[in-house]
Amino acid sequence: MTQPVIGTPWTKLENPVSADALAAVDKYWRCANYLSVGQIYLRSNPLMREDWTDAKTGKKRDFGRVDVKHRLVGHWGTTPGINFLFGHVNHLIADHGQSTIFLMGPGHGGPAGTAQSLLDGTYREIRPDITDDEAGLEKFFRQFSYPGGIPSHFAPETPGSIHEGGELGYTLSHAYGAVMDNPSLLAVAVVGDGEAETAALATSWQSNKLVNPKTDGIVLPILHLNGYKIANPTILARISDEELTKFFEGMGYKPHFFVAGFDNESHASIHARFAAQLEVVFGEICDIKANAELGDETRPVYPMIVFRTPKGWTCPKHIDGKKTEDSWRAHQVPLADARDTHEHFRVLRSWLRSYGPEELFTSEGQVREDVTAFMPKGDLRIGANPNANGGKIRRELELPDIHAHEVPVAEKGHGWGATEAARVFGAYTADVLAKNDNFRIFGPDETASNRLQDCYAATSKQWLAGHYADADNDDLLAPSGRVIEQLSEHQCEGFLEAYVLTGRHGVWSSYESFVHVVDSMVNQHCKWLEATKREIPWRAPISGLNILLSSHVWRQDHNGFSHQDPGFIDVLLNKANDTHVVNAYYPCDANMALAVAERVYQSTDCVNAIFCGKQPAPTFVTVDDARAELAEGLAAWEWASTASSLEEADLVIATCGDVPTLEALAAVDLLREHGVKVWFVNVVDLLKIQNACENDQAISDERFAEFFGAGDKPVLFCFHAYAGTIRRLVWARPGHDAWCVHGYEEKGSTTTPFDMLRLNNMDRWALAAEALRLVDSASCDPAHAGQIEAWEAFRLEAFEFAVEEGYDHPAFTDWVWPDAASNMESALSATQMTAGDNE
Amino acid sequence: MTQPVIGTPWTKLENPVSADALAAVDKYWRCANYLSVGQIYLRSNPLMREDWTDAKTGKKRDFGRVDVKHRLVGHWGTTPGINFLFGHVNHLIADHGQSTIFLMGPGHGGPAGTAQSLLDGTYREIRPDITDDEAGLEKFFRQFSYPGGIPSHFAPETPGSIHEGGELGYTLSHAYGAVMDNPSLLAVAVVGDGEAETAALATSWQSNKLVNPKTDGIVLPILHLNGYKIANPTILARISDEELTKFFEGMGYKPHFFVAGFDNESHASIHARFAAQLEVVFGEICDIKANAELGDETRPVYPMIVFRTPKGWTCPKHIDGKKTEDSWRAHQVPLADARDTHEHFRVLRSWLRSYGPEELFTSEGQVREDVTAFMPKGDLRIGANPNANGGKIRRELELPDIHAHEVPVAEKGHGWGATEAARVFGAYTADVLAKNDNFRIFGPDETASNRLQDCYAATSKQWLAGHYADADNDDLLAPSGRVIEQLSEHQCEGFLEAYVLTGRHGVWSSYESFVHVVDSMVNQHCKWLEATKREIPWRAPISGLNILLSSHVWRQDHNGFSHQDPGFIDVLLNKANDTHVVNAYYPCDANMALAVAERVYQSTDCVNAIFCGKQPAPTFVTVDDARAELAEGLAAWEWASTASSLEEADLVIATCGDVPTLEALAAVDLLREHGVKVWFVNVVDLLKIQNACENDQAISDERFAEFFGAGDKPVLFCFHAYAGTIRRLVWARPGHDAWCVHGYEEKGSTTTPFDMLRLNNMDRWALAAEALRLVDSASCDPAHAGQIEAWEAFRLEAFEFAVEEGYDHPAFTDWVWPDAASNMESALSATQMTAGDNE
Repeated sequence: MTQPVIGTPWTKLENPVSADALAAVDKYWRCANYLSVGQIYLRSNPLMREDWTDAKTGKKRDFGRVDVKHRLVGHWGTTPGINFLFGHVNHLIADHGQSTIFLMGPGHGGPAGTAQSLLDGTYREIRPDITDDEAGLEKFFRQFSYPGGIPSHFAPETPGSIHEGGELGYTLSHAYGAVMDNPSLLAVAVVGDGEAETAALATSWQSNKLVNPKTDGIVLPILHLNGYKIANPTILARISDEELTKFFEGMGYKPHFFVAGFDNESHASIHARFAAQLEVVFGEICDIKANAELGDETRPVYPMIVFRTPKGWTCPKHIDGKKTEDSWRAHQVPLADARDTHEHFRVLRSWLRSYGPEELFTSEGQVREDVTAFMPKGDLRIGANPNANGGKIRRELELPDIHAHEVPVAEKGHGWGATEAARVFGAYTADVLAKNDNFRIFGPDETASNRLQDCYAATSKQWLAGHYADADNDDLLAPSGRVIEQLSEHQCEGFLEAYVLTGRHGVWSSYESFVHVVDSMVNQHCKWLEATKREIPWRAPISGLNILLSSHVWRQDHNGFSHQDPGFIDVLLNKANDTHVVNAYYPCDANMALAVAERVYQSTDCVNAIFCGKQPAPTFVTVDDARAELAEGLAAWEWASTASSLEEADLVIATCGDVPTLEALAAVDLLREHGVKVWFVNVVDLLKIQNACENDQAISDERFAEFFGAGDKPVLFCFHAYAGTIRRLVWARPGHDAWCVHGYEEKGSTTTPFDMLRLNNMDRWALAAEALRLVDSASCDPAHAGQIEAWEAFRLEAFEFAVEEGYDHPAFTDWVWPDAASNMESALSATQMTAGDNE
Repeated sequence: MTQPVIGTPWTKLENPVSADALAAVDKYWRCANYLSVGQIYLRSNPLMREDWTDAKTGKKRDFGRVDVKHRLVGHWGTTPGINFLFGHVNHLIADHGQSTIFLMGPGHGGPAGTAQSLLDGTYREIRPDITDDEAGLEKFFRQFSYPGGIPSHFAPETPGSIHEGGELGYTLSHAYGAVMDNPSLLAVAVVGDGEAETAALATSWQSNKLVNPKTDGIVLPILHLNGYKIANPTILARISDEELTKFFEGMGYKPHFFVAGFDNESHASIHARFAAQLEVVFGEICDIKANAELGDETRPVYPMIVFRTPKGWTCPKHIDGKKTEDSWRAHQVPLADARDTHEHFRVLRSWLRSYGPEELFTSEGQVREDVTAFMPKGDLRIGANPNANGGKIRRELELPDIHAHEVPVAEKGHGWGATEAARVFGAYTADVLAKNDNFRIFGPDETASNRLQDCYAATSKQWLAGHYADADNDDLLAPSGRVIEQLSEHQCEGFLEAYVLTGRHGVWSSYESFVHVVDSMVNQHCKWLEATKREIPWRAPISGLNILLSSHVWRQDHNGFSHQDPGFIDVLLNKANDTHVVNAYYPCDANMALAVAERVYQSTDCVNAIFCGKQPAPTFVTVDDARAELAEGLAAWEWASTASSLEEADLVIATCGDVPTLEALAAVDLLREHGVKVWFVNVVDLLKIQNACENDQAISDERFAEFFGAGDKPVLFCFHAYAGTIRRLVWARPGHDAWCVHGYEEKGSTTTPFDMLRLNNMDRWALAAEALRLVDSASCDPAHAGQIEAWEAFRLEAFEFAVEEGYDHPAFTDWVWPDAASNMESALSATQMTAGDNE
């Protein structure tokens, strides 16, 4: 297990929390609130001195409007509630020695996160420029949501964060992913009531059916109900407690309700009540853990907290005569004119003073010791928990030799066999999983369908939702295992994001088309990585996030048009910049899939998309050749070329993707009969051909010209996805105007594999005809026109024949590729693609 | 209200369903099951004749393996349960005269949908080639999931469908969107237990807080629990009935459990039980409706049904000794070798015979009258309900004159004022909403933030989740209204999809970045439209689906990097083909936004993305000029050009997007001082510049050259989103190699509006410098190099100044655009962009 041992987990307290301890938490709360308001409003004079020395004029002056930021950016609404929770969770951690991470769903609670890490000391460790004095405090206030400063969320810039919450919905997926295989870790996950309305969050409550109380850690969800989103009420805040109770009980939780801030109850009393309740809740968690240790593997009922407080708690009750605390008006910056009007400024000043800053800070601007004395130390600090900076505790995977799974093309010849590339990827992945206890597989009910089922020899599907007595149907399920399946791409992506963010490794698989379901999540993970790589050196590199995209467009002939969309690459391309956070691999066959697997399982700080077929298909390259090709990203296939060199060739045929490669090879064979000499290039690492001016890891323009020429001869590029993608990629490359790109043309239905190719002009005959047209534009050969017509006619006949005869006539299902032994002789080969399964 | 009056809605029966009636439903069930198995397995001899005449040989032969399809594609697992439900819902409709649509969440129940419409007669109305005889039946069977045939889902090709279910999760969003403002419509929504695990479905249960029992119709969700997904158990099938009950009660439903098929209960008894239960459920619905009519506007508890049956119900219990019925093995095609082995074929034959085809079909292959006599007639038929072919009942909107909202640029000069374009779009939309009862607005808590708040003068936010006593906070909420807000982009998109699919109109708005959350839903809606436009003439055109993308990348300076992503266009572009199902509009200002609004509210069968700023900004064009520009998609702005013609210009500066347009105009002003003559072009309808070979509605290459030249002079294109998009668009255009594109470079944080521009090289100084560089590559001017350096230095200074001084120093927040009156004289103008709000 990867998590460090910090503290003794899951131990109850012997005595109730003392009043002294609670007084300390109250000081934390007041101080964090002051620091939060300060971050949102103040640019100078952070302690509101009457004798502040203005650095510009050198003169002393009173705290005034001039100390308020020109532009007020930030969100107060959720912040005081989160400060309250941070205070109590800090106390819990310190008292129990409980390793804990804190996930902040309401992204708008950013000031609470930075305040927390300032108070636990971690902020100044990573930001020594925020000195422990008044100047440091001023800088801390001013930088928040400020040019050249820090973002307004619990962003990667904040120690202790693994979840930004800028885009809402993923708190629980992240929390549950973080605790998997982390049996001693508690993840406190604050869910906002706005966030709770999102799709992703709604299904993620069910994650408690997918974790094991013994071998995984515990998630404590805290639903923060404050009644309002930006400008609207929230559903969960407005239904009755009775409905809320049933809702959570129905999902396997025991809700604990806590309500405060709506009456005149003293803060001391509120703290006492909450601390006691939190101890009860933690006690229930300890019982669950103890019970699991005793061998009870049934799914426990997990506690969660419904935390209902006023929105903007402790801010002015009314501003300009309008209700503010406990209103949507507290969502953002309740005093918009604090710099412009004395009226607002006076309210702000009183508000700040209400926290008693003189009790919280020394006159030099240091936080008083008695504010933070109760907080945890060392790695137990929320900002320092190693799981929240997962790269620090990441262990490299022990990777088996990929040769063990090699398809023997070296002996059998290029184009040998009928191998499912994804299955070979899966077999290797199963070995990786068997050798490493820090590797997981996630799937939206597609792990087997996408051909990763060999992993079941090494592990089980973790499942605690309930079993049927008939074991025959529930084989492969177990209370503990390192495969998790929920029919939710959001959950797969979210679990894996958190699993790698906390220092582990893994892969999830999706039907290519449906990965679009998580476009936005992937975008956000990329942005986290981009920010990290550009600006946050203290975050250690985390494992690459691997997505196997199988069941791809060309072989979703049986599932139809809704299942045919190869456009995920276009979402990734928007993140293909100098931070190198995305990779897109299109292995041509099973051996190339192995080489790609070996690479992605070693990668860091990136998203790897592996577009890999799952149907039986020929293998073209040896593992060693695959590795060599992958090293550069592409390779000329001399053995497949009918020209002996680029110079001698009439055109270049280049491919990216398994099915286009097979069809293009067959096209070369057709063209051979017509004396057309082809130079054949295969691309596996797509971004290596990206314009060099956009990607400093792409091949140089000189090298590019060695593969594709410099416009002196046509290039027919056969691409797995939409053609426009390639056009965008090579815009600035030499000779790009000589490129003709074939790709998916958004045509399809439930039809045959052949017909998918025909409809999108990717079949061998269409490619060969295009090649003839391209060559003829240089030197016209009248015989070619007739051949093109003949091929076009044949394609139509072939379709009509399929309609008449059905799918599996050899003419359309036996994919023809001459093996190397027969030296390019056309023959029905062993490379028959079966009709395929229908998953 | 748009729905036609068909039947008298919401009336209870006086007597229980008779045994005769139930016998008819059983026949329906058996017949639909036979038709479903037939579709999956048979290619010929649909009635299993012993004396079938083989059309090829002319000889008679027995039913045999040769009649089985070569390739078995389809899914049996969920189909018999759906057939059962179709039978009973048909019965309910006929008995009660209740207008009803049927949504099939399990996309894999496709054969049940086609069987239903064959039996209700609608299939043969749209497909006269499926004749009412044995030949027609053979064709019906063979075409299913067959080359040149029909898809395997409840696709647009099937009458009565408004929901394909190929990608799972949207059944309830679609059902609830369909019943809005359709008070007499019942939507039966079957949710699969796999689908129920998705993010979108999980949150959509909460839709019952957003519909009104009086003014909207009723959704009856039926959760179809059969225990398994493709290869895994499902969560909701495996938790206890107690948890399930609480789960649904917690979400405001009254669950009715129905379990059948696990023992030896007779089908007659099962039918009787279900019919009785369905009457009870429908009675509860009638009570809700009656109660609402009496004026009770509180949220009722809606009934729903938990329908638990074996997966693959009525298929062989065991195949090859392995449990099949009630197992994941029944998910797909349980007898994979029915053509290849006699063993499997015999099982298939017995299975088909078990439904008693001789009682269901005449010897001529017609369905016997007593099978279908009970079914509803006319528009009450599920396949004929006009709401499921919404274009048939769509009324054009009554559109007010956009001039009423015109910003008076004609009198005041180009670049006048500081107007929020999205707000003007919203004001016009409010007029549209006021004038039309078939228009709705949806928002993920962003309707006001995205500036559509003027609509609240015309309507309220529909909200039935609960109100606080303090009315001040809950103003604008009402039990009935035509704005709906849930913090879920999935719900907004799903509601609107269904609202337009059922013949109405609307718009939803999103922060530009977060529309990626529904990339996949938009893809699927596009695919529905593409299929419709290519192949389904009987589906009448439906309203365009309008998405206002505001709070865009350039002004998310305050919310930070997570909120900055303009890449939705790249998802849309993959659907920009000859079906013309997508449009992307980038209005330069408020008046252009009006022209775009006018167009999109008249459009049909498309998705319209409107990328429109919400911050105060100058207005450049009159409404009439805007209309003229929109008509062609782009326009040369002679008034903004410093060259008198394209010929005279040193370069073309072209823009697409409001912020780039403003910056480019300022750059023209800077360049003027250096004697550089610019021809200025603005693009509003982006796809009009797409390569003409890809888009037959784009401008011709000749026309393109009239705007941009043909490579003879540089083009500096300033684009709202990523630069690669433009490169992909104009790949085949004349002179494209002379284009230099500036766009968002994926750089940003929480910073100033100016700094967002600087970081991404979109500020006026960067653009002017680029223009000089482009011009100089033709004719080098040594003075330019110095100016470029000076500008670069100024940009850096400006950033440092902002860090020191804060946001709102006039140098960086007063956007300078000389008004027309002063004839291009540079001056601080009235076009100050405010620091903006922080939503």
